Parts: sequence; C-alpha cells; structure tokens
Amino acid sequence: MSHHEHLKFTRRDLLKSAAMAGATLGMSGLGAPQEMEAATGDERYLKTPKARFQSMIGMKFPALSKVRVGFIGVGGRGTSLLGNFLAIDDVQVTAICDIVKDHVSRAQAKVEKAGQKAPALFDQGERAFESLCRRDDVDLVVIATPWRWHVPMAVFAMNNGKHAAVEVPAANTLKECWDLVDTSEKTRHHCVMLENCCYGSNEMMVLNMVRAGLFGELTHGAAAYNHDLRRILFSKESEGLWRRSEHLDRNGNLYPTHGLGPVANYMNINQGDRFESLVSMSSPAKSLTFYRSQHLAADDPRMKEAYKCGDLNISLIKTARGLVITLEHNVSTPQPYDRINLIAGTKGIFRDYPPRIFLDGQPGGDEFVGIEEFKAQYEHPLWKQEGELARKLGGHGGMDFIMCYRLVQCMREGLPPDSDVYDAASWCAPAPLSEMSVAKGSAPMPFPDFTRGRWKESRS
Amino acid sequence: MSHHEHLKFTRRDLLKSAAMAGATLGMSGLGAPQEMEAATGDERYLKTPKARFQSMIGMKFPALSKVRVGFIGVGGRGTSLLGNFLAIDDVQVTAICDIVKDHVSRAQAKVEKAGQKAPALFDQGERAFESLCRRDDVDLVVIATPWRWHVPMAVFAMNNGKHAAVEVPAANTLKECWDLVDTSEKTRHHCVMLENCCYGSNEMMVLNMVRAGLFGELTHGAAAYNHDLRRILFSKESEGLWRRSEHLDRNGNLYPTHGLGPVANYMNINQGDRFESLVSMSSPAKSLTFYRSQHLAADDPRMKEAYKCGDLNISLIKTARGLVITLEHNVSTPQPYDRINLIAGTKGIFRDYPPRIFLDGQPGGDEFVGIEEFKAQYEHPLWKQEGELARKLGGHGGMDFIMCYRLVQCMREGLPPDSDVYDAASWCAPAPLSEMSVAKGSAPMPFPDFTRGRWKESRS
Repeated sequence: MSHHEHLKFTRRDLLKSAAMAGATLGMSGLGAPQEMEAATGDERYLKTPKARFQSMIGMKFPALSKVRVGFIGVGGRGTSLLGNFLAIDDVQVTAICDIVKDHVSRAQAKVEKAGQKAPALFDQGERAFESLCRRDDVDLVVIATPWRWHVPMAVFAMNNGKHAAVEVPAANTLKECWDLVDTSEKTRHHCVMLENCCYGSNEMMVLNMVRAGLFGELTHGAAAYNHDLRRILFSKESEGLWRRSEHLDRNGNLYPTHGLGPVANYMNINQGDRFESLVSMSSPAKSLTFYRSQHLAADDPRMKEAYKCGDLNISLIKTARGLVITLEHNVSTPQPYDRINLIAGTKGIFRDYPPRIFLDGQPGGDEFVGIEEFKAQYEHPLWKQEGELARKLGGHGGMDFIMCYRLVQCMREGLPPDSDVYDAASWCAPAPLSEMSVAKGSAPMPFPDFTRGRWKESRS
Repeated sequence: MSHHEHLKFTRRDLLKSAAMAGATLGMSGLGAPQEMEAATGDERYLKTPKARFQSMIGMKFPALSKVRVGFIGVGGRGTSLLGNFLAIDDVQVTAICDIVKDHVSRAQAKVEKAGQKAPALFDQGERAFESLCRRDDVDLVVIATPWRWHVPMAVFAMNNGKHAAVEVPAANTLKECWDLVDTSEKTRHHCVMLENCCYGSNEMMVLNMVRAGLFGELTHGAAAYNHDLRRILFSKESEGLWRRSEHLDRNGNLYPTHGLGPVANYMNINQGDRFESLVSMSSPAKSLTFYRSQHLAADDPRMKEAYKCGDLNISLIKTARGLVITLEHNVSTPQPYDRINLIAGTKGIFRDYPPRIFLDGQPGGDEFVGIEEFKAQYEHPLWKQEGELARKLGGHGGMDFIMCYRLVQCMREGLPPDSDVYDAASWCAPAPLSEMSVAKGSAPMPFPDFTRGRWKESRS
C-alpha cells in the first residue's frame, strides 16, 4: 500500500466498518447518521443570525408530579444513567430504545427490578428512536449514543414535544450547536446537556466558594480532558467502534465540556459573561500510532488508519469581560487523569487533581493546602443531602446521580434547568472552533453569541 | 485626579522617580538607559535579515588557564553570583562595578576574603561600566543589572573584546535580540544568558531522561514563571524601584526564560528544531491593584499607577517540527511558586512542582510517582560531582553554582558554551512576541530565525 493510499483510509472507511459491526454489535457500533460536515467548512455558522423565536433563557419546566423518562441508548453509559434515574423518587422509566436487543432486555430487567411496570421497548434499527420520541407517555428523552447521533435525536425529541437530556458533547459542529438552539427555541422545550462534571462534589463546593468571594475578582481558569483513552479507542467493542474515528479527520479540542462546564459556571458564562474568542494549537499526532505499533498485529486493518488529531490540543478562550480560560484535550499521551479544574482571582487559586487551594495570607507559607477544612462551610446542599446515596450508587463518584437528581428536581418543581441549550452550545463550540483555528495556523476565532446578547443578564 | 490623568501616569513617570531614587539608592534604582521602544512597534525585526557575519554556532571559547571575571551590578543578584564564581578554581575576579558605593565595597571585601587580590572598582555613575569593559584583565563580563541595561552593557562588553554573561532576560525587544546576535557574530565573542534554571538538578536529570528516550517521541511541553512577586514589586528598594514599571505599559509574557530554557533544551531547540510561531492571551490586570489597595496608604504616589500587564499571560509556541509549548507568566496572583517544567511524549510525561513522572505501563496504575528512583541512573554528572558544594553554597538550590561552574569549565577547556546568543535571543523573544500577539487580539506571530537556518543542525 502506497503512502498515498494509506492517507486515503480515513474516518469514512472506519465508519463504514463500524456500521457493519453495528449491525451485529449494537448501537455502540452505529455509523454516523450522515457524513458530518467538516468543522473547517462550518464558518458560515460563526455569525449570530437574528432571533426567529423567543429565548429559552429563564424558561421554567412545567411542574410535573411525576417525570416520565425515555432512554435512547442503553449501552455502558445509558445503563449507568438508567440506574441513577431509577433511584430518584417520582421518576418513571416508560420507554427504552437501543439497536442492540441484549441492551434493551438488560435495561428492561433493571426497570422491572426497580418495581416499575414494563417499559415500551424499541430495538428495530437505527430509526427506532423516532417511535420512542413520538410516544405520549414520555416527558424527557435521555440520549446516550455515539456523538454524531446526539443532535439528530435531540432535535427529533424536541420536535415531538419532549425535553432532551443529551450526553456530552451535545453537538459536534457549529451548525449542530445552532440546530439545538433553534429547535429548543422553536419547540419551547429544553435541551440540557448531561455535563456530569458540573455536579462533582469539588466543582459544586468550589462554585460556592467562588460565589462567596473567596478568590476575589476572577481573572482566569483552566480546564482539561486529559484522559488516556488509548485502550478504549482501540477496543473492538463499545466506544472503540466509533470514537477513534473522530481522530481520523478532525484536529482540535474534540471533547471540551467536562473541563469547561464547571469553569464556565465559576465565571458566570451566559449569565454575565460569555466566551468571545478562541485560539488553538495542536501537537503532532504520535501516541495512537505508537500505541498501535505496540499492541496490534501487523496485518490489523487499523494499522492503515492515519490519525490527524494532535495528542495535545490546547485552546485559549477569552471572555467578553477579558477573562482567560486554558482548555486542554489529550486522550493519547500516557498520563494520569486530569481535568485541571483551576480557578483564580485576586485573592487566591484552586486547582484540582488532587484538590488544593491557596488563599492569600493563609498560614503555612507558599504551599497549597487541601480543601477538607472548607467542607463544613461550603459543601453544596445537594451533596450534603444526597451525597451518601450518590456515592453508594457510584457513577463517577456520585456526580452522575446528583446531576440526574437535580434535573428531575427542576422538572418536578417547575424551575428552569441549571444549564440550558445556550450552555450546551457554548460549551461544545470550542471543538469546531479549535478545529478551525488549528487549520488556520492558530488564528483567533470568534464564538457565535448563542444567547443573542442575553448573556449580559444575571440569572440569579 | 480625573480618570484621564490617572491613565497618563505610566512607566515613564515611574522610571523618572526611580532614576531620582537611584541617585541615592544605587544601581537597583537605575532608570532605563533610554525609553524602550514599545514591542508593538518592533515588527520590522520579525524578519530575518541576511547574515553579515559568520555564525557563532559551535564557536569554541579560546581555552584559558585562568578565567578573569568583571562584574557589572553587585546588588542582591550580582553578589550571589560573585559568591558562586569565587568558589570555582581558576577564577579571578578582577573588576567590580556598581553605581552604589556600598555594593562595590561589599563585593570588594568578598573578593579579598576569598584570598584574591583587590579588584579594580568602578562606581562613578551609570556609565562607569564602560571603563570596566575596556580593561585588559577581564575575559568575561557578568551583568546583573535592571533588565533595560542588559543589552547596552552586553553589547559594550563584546565590542570591547569580552565575552558577556547576562542575567535573564538578556533582551526585552526583538531589536535587542538582534543587537545581541549581530554583536556576538561581529565581535566573535559569546553572549551567554545566565539561565540558571537550565542547571537545576531536576532539569538536568530530566534532560538526561529525555535524551535516553524514556518519554518516547516528544509531543509537547509546558513552562511557566508563576511566582507571586507582589511584595517585591511594591518594595521601596531593590527590584521594587524598577521592576513594577514593566507592568505599566507592557502586556505579555514579561519573563519567559526560566520556564522556557529547560523545555527548549528537552526539545533540542536551535539544534534540530526551532520556535516557529506564538499566540498569546492575557487575563485582566487585577491583582496588583487589589494588593495595593490592601497595603498602600491612600496618598501613596503608586496608587496613581495604571497596570497594563494581565495577571496571567499564557502563550502557545509551535516549533518547526510541530511540537507545542505552553508558556505561562503570572507574578501577581496569590499562588505557590511553579515553573511547571513539563515534558511529554509517546511513552510518558514529567511534571515538576513537585517533581513527578508517569511512564507508560509503570506499576501502581494511573498515578504519578516521584523521581527518586531514577536518580542513580539519570542524575547529571555535574550534579554528582559538584552537587554537594552547590547545595552548600545555596543560590536557588545550587543551580546557580552549577551554571557558573559549567560556564567556567567551557572557558577553561575551550568548549562552546552550553547556550549561545541564539538561545538567549530565542528564549527572550516570547516576551515581545507575546506583547504583539496580545495587542492584535491573540494573532499568531512568527519567530525570527536568529540562527538563520542553522537550527537544523545537530550540535552533539
């Protein structure tokens, strides 16, 4: 095979083989619903078009005595979320969809074991989710499928009168970001991204500390998704069937929301400030190729793949108020897990992994200290109240349960969601924007203003 | 005072008062030799002009049996360096210059206490250094003065047939970088930047590990000068007299070399790769103003200063081979000291503060480990040989002595210096380049090629 042929084996080929695998291996093997437009052709969506519908900012859920949930995708992630929702009072799981029959049966058993009546089941091909979305006994559709299916499914759910709760990243391109915004506004239904990291015990406690002014006036933050996924990316099942494909023709910050969501909250993004511009730089793509050389047979077809996504992408985000956020993405360098989760201001700094803090004038000199001593005063009430159950259930240390619990709480009590479609779009936009910036030699890229000027309003 | 008048009080005013203070307070109170051209007007120096002289790459020092050293500036830093040089065999300190008589006397006593004969002394005003540079009994001029004097003094020394060893940053603008390069090439004398951090025990050990291939193929690094200098910047003596002025009309990565030098060495910058472009972003300037409000009287004249330099500057550097370096500068956020000193490749990662390492497949799972176990195999020979004396002498944990020792060793043995004028220029250039990038909304800026293409050559 010539070098030229080698380069031609790209994401399209992988998706083709993944889709074939999907026929037997299930939704985790779904191909993309369509060949996604390259982010670098996405620039016409940089501009903020005039509003056609009313804003969803501050829009309350209609209060519900019972929240009826349908699940699209009950692979590893969806099954874990299902367990969390089943542990919440007044949640009824009424429908389950997956292209893998075994996944559906497993989920069904879980629902029945929780003492609920049998849910409606949908497993007839990759459009079966449409039937789920059309049902009358579903208030909220939870979507935990491969990335490229998030927007089509969320849009379909909202267009059929359901709220959508979408796994991260909710959207992959600027066009997809706008599709979510437009559809949420048009249908008056919420699109909430399931950004669990915003509900971590450290993140919620630090948010309380920020709001109490412990760090003074904020100046900068840092976020990351530094997570060695090499084994998972080369797995022959689950995410290995489709997630590696993202590295074949995209080069940027592919998975920005886990790190960015919490920092956006610290900075009141979309409620007093907004992301304004971004520059981005990628290192060479080396580590997946090296890993493969160590772990795959010489005749493995994956040896022909050419990875484009740099091992490290680092993007710098400037907010309208001038604050700076550093955003890293690295899923292939051998290294310990790190979302950084840093926030700093005129009075001090917090940095996670492990959690540590320095406040001006603290005793002990020029050294970080742990955050245990702040817990009594600043632990978030939700963690005080539900933390024991959350930790028992597991799911990323309990943050998954707190997230699901809080979403259901907002729906029961008729509150606006903690994060709305504008947050989903803003937190996802760094992926396509970073691809554009990298392709242009790190040129600055403007963020669309998904809120259309309403980011200036406080929401408290 | 109106807001408008407030803004007009800038670095020029501070330097004026510092210069007046300098009349009684000494060299640490020297004003700048001239109003420095703003970096943003420095763009005509981005281009690499044709060579007029031969390159200094690989140029050996003429071997000397004795190295005769003259010191310009024996305030805090110069005095510490003097102590290190006096502890090295075959060094003779022949001349001392400072505008503060007390400093000169203190240095003289130090030299005589070391058993050397009385050095020539120069304390008659801010041009007295010229007389020192003209002497016949000086081989190397060590320059430890305020930043704006580094280039005029180094250029004068080289033009008078001396090698120059200059404190960091050797240069502040691109024009100054080129002045050093041109003068070194023209005079055939070296300009070595005294970048002590390249000689830290961790840095030298990690360099050995990188060269032994432990981290695999390199992809990225990170460097910083994160050092809370608020107290020093507002001191009424020493650096407080001039260093704060840099924050009045510059906004960028003011002090890049301590973090960058070691990472440049890991990546073989100027000997196989080079810095190619940079983008930069600054947070708002908040922390000096806040600190001042807590520590200065309302009628203190410094309350009128308007700081321009963002608390955090973060710059991203791309090398010709595609590697990425993150470069932070933050001297005003309350936080522990951190130069980051990160290097990563396909097989693992090192990160400092505290020093820790992760190599693919290491036992213990997804956790960093310390570097003690690597010491037996990878500690640098210079630290093995001279580490005990270095640590006893102090000076940033001994790195200062190792640096001075190594420079004298190169001069005695007739070797090329470890780092030359091209390294000095390359490591200093991020300061003006970041100012330009910040002023242009984070636009990418190209590095001049100070080596004029010779960075492609290995020097080993």
